[in-house]
Amino acid sequence: MLETTANGSLLTSPGKVDRYAGQDFNEHVTLENWQESPFNRWGFVHISELITTATIRRGRASGPSTGSESATPEHAERWHSVEEFLESTHTDAIVVLQHGKLVLERYFGSFQPHDRHVLMSVSKSVCALTMGILVGRGLIDPQQPVHHYVPPLKGSAYGNATVRQVLDMTAAVRYSENYLDAAAEVQQQDRIAGWRPKLETDPEDTYEFLTLLKAAGEHGRSFQYCSAGTDVLAWIIENVSGKRYAEVVSDELWSQLGTLDDALITTDSGGFAFANGGIACTARDLAKIGQLMLDEGKANGQQVVPSWWINDTMRGGDPQLARGTAYQQVHPNGSYRNQWWVPGDSRGTVYAAGIHGQFIWIDPVSDTVIAKFSSYPQPVALELSRAHAAGFRQLISILEYTS
Amino acid sequence: MLETTANGSLLTSPGKVDRYAGQDFNEHVTLENWQESPFNRWGFVHISELITTATIRRGRASGPSTGSESATPEHAERWHSVEEFLESTHTDAIVVLQHGKLVLERYFGSFQPHDRHVLMSVSKSVCALTMGILVGRGLIDPQQPVHHYVPPLKGSAYGNATVRQVLDMTAAVRYSENYLDAAAEVQQQDRIAGWRPKLETDPEDTYEFLTLLKAAGEHGRSFQYCSAGTDVLAWIIENVSGKRYAEVVSDELWSQLGTLDDALITTDSGGFAFANGGIACTARDLAKIGQLMLDEGKANGQQVVPSWWINDTMRGGDPQLARGTAYQQVHPNGSYRNQWWVPGDSRGTVYAAGIHGQFIWIDPVSDTVIAKFSSYPQPVALELSRAHAAGFRQLISILEYTS
Repeated sequence: MLETTANGSLLTSPGKVDRYAGQDFNEHVTLENWQESPFNRWGFVHISELITTATIRRGRASGPSTGSESATPEHAERWHSVEEFLESTHTDAIVVLQHGKLVLERYFGSFQPHDRHVLMSVSKSVCALTMGILVGRGLIDPQQPVHHYVPPLKGSAYGNATVRQVLDMTAAVRYSENYLDAAAEVQQQDRIAGWRPKLETDPEDTYEFLTLLKAAGEHGRSFQYCSAGTDVLAWIIENVSGKRYAEVVSDELWSQLGTLDDALITTDSGGFAFANGGIACTARDLAKIGQLMLDEGKANGQQVVPSWWINDTMRGGDPQLARGTAYQQVHPNGSYRNQWWVPGDSRGTVYAAGIHGQFIWIDPVSDTVIAKFSSYPQPVALELSRAHAAGFRQLISILEYTS
Repeated sequence: MLETTANGSLLTSPGKVDRYAGQDFNEHVTLENWQESPFNRWGFVHISELITTATIRRGRASGPSTGSESATPEHAERWHSVEEFLESTHTDAIVVLQHGKLVLERYFGSFQPHDRHVLMSVSKSVCALTMGILVGRGLIDPQQPVHHYVPPLKGSAYGNATVRQVLDMTAAVRYSENYLDAAAEVQQQDRIAGWRPKLETDPEDTYEFLTLLKAAGEHGRSFQYCSAGTDVLAWIIENVSGKRYAEVVSDELWSQLGTLDDALITTDSGGFAFANGGIACTARDLAKIGQLMLDEGKANGQQVVPSWWINDTMRGGDPQLARGTAYQQVHPNGSYRNQWWVPGDSRGTVYAAGIHGQFIWIDPVSDTVIAKFSSYPQPVALELSRAHAAGFRQLISILEYTS
């Protein structure tokens, strides 16, 4: 049915109010403001209208979704606190799988099951799974230095880091990951990637940007979260495969998972796909990435990612390397391995996280995957990390209690 | 399997040669050149990497394709001339349905079954089918003037034209459709739509552009092919539905046809979806639009578009209105109705056409649909039109002969 009334959403498009007479479409979403609240609620779901994109294809034989569409354990006594968690963290969508079955699926605001939400740094975890496939095939040796696979990076920060160090983010790079600082490298990367208006002084594209980064000491000594590292991994993937990054993710990973929809990835003027943060997909498909982890790399009855790669990832890295980080203020025993966060708790939790509240949270004990999209106003904050860790753990305990 | 060798395509990405060591990726495709040969072969298939896009969703329950993937009537004696036709017209893909079944499917160069090719003005025919649905529902009366539905167009060229006149392109507009003239309105529209680099003197977006067009005489007197008219239809569709154009096409048409994949449509800085030429889809899905015409508006067992709208379209308009046009040099009895071309031949042919050789050709006598994507070097040419009419008719006669 065609709706002839306004859909009640304040932020629906970059359109003009006088052009949608009688509608509430009275706010602009622009390249300048789409990452800021409240514009991010629309921007995170309409990234292809703001930035150019390439397709990451679903499997050709994908059928309709199986499982209940809105399973909610309404009888749970503590459920209201989960509702509060979802509301207070500006949730756009949550999909929970337990024992591989859909047990909870909720959408908020105007977000729909078919909508694709930007993953932010959850994209990094997707990149490393793709790399795990190529490592398993012998195309990449994590002990090799980066310049072995990408000669133009020789002499730059990442050139003599090993692939392993880049995977675990222990390369030492002069790079500020302060999302709110216009002078930070992470914002410059945004501009070059087409995520913000470009400055004349910026390098031409991400490839060039990566060649210009400078080292900041000895690699391998400590954990330094740096978005550029994932883009280096993507460049390695392109060079060893002879294909573009989006094609490799399509062919090797996304089309093999029984995904229901294509995903997207933003591209820059040089054709570089923004591996560190630019994927957008549906909530249901995102949960399939988590299920792949729980199933030790198997999906649709076949081994997509080597099981040893998944196991190595879920065991985590060395927590000593992350001493003194904000991360360990939330997860004191936490480490970072193969672009996944490993809290080091007794349940074997592992998670992928993106700014503004994007998550895949995996709990092996209860065999649960939680995929969550949000439009949290701040990109990163201790209370955001704490609220999510607590919220996910409570949700899992309720599911255990009621199942 | 991952290919580790170059794919043999000269034009594969906007990437740089030194960044893809050992590959043949040595040409740039840019916003300046993507519509020109040979760059258009890549550009037409990667439009989302050059221009921002919105999604036109497939049906959620779509399954895998049915039917043979490469049925070719190789035994046909005259088949070599069809091969010549396909080669000489720079074909990227051709899909032929007969009695609703796939009887021929061929891809050329690097174009794949999952690739989405830009439709150019075949997009217009999709727009009018969508409007037919809303007319059938009583939301639009074709006899009303345009300003009745879009008040901001009052006083501009289209304001006092009727919707019927815009559908049949008999509105009189000061507008040059010369694709190769930088001063022509059609190129200005390209720039505003994000299809070419914008000039500072250009209007902000397509909405504003449409309000500035001037009339050029009395409406309804003669056929004047003018791309802007379709964008006016899309604006009407947005205003009567309260939804954005891509949403309406998704909900009412594309998701109802058993399409296998999402389609895309390019968007401009004002959020306007480029209705007159900006849709991209797979060849298989495009053929479903033709099948919908042959099936009098039915698809998947339901009436998607009113049958009377389809019948009215296929009967054609008044050929007198198109006297003296290049169109009638190819089809002397040709007319234009509801954004479809109706040659007025004895077989009841009707077709949709886009520059550089995009076609849906429908032959009711043999119950055949031909969907064809091309990267023909010239946008329009008499020999291009003649070659396609002759090629399609020969192909159909071979299918009749061999079936």
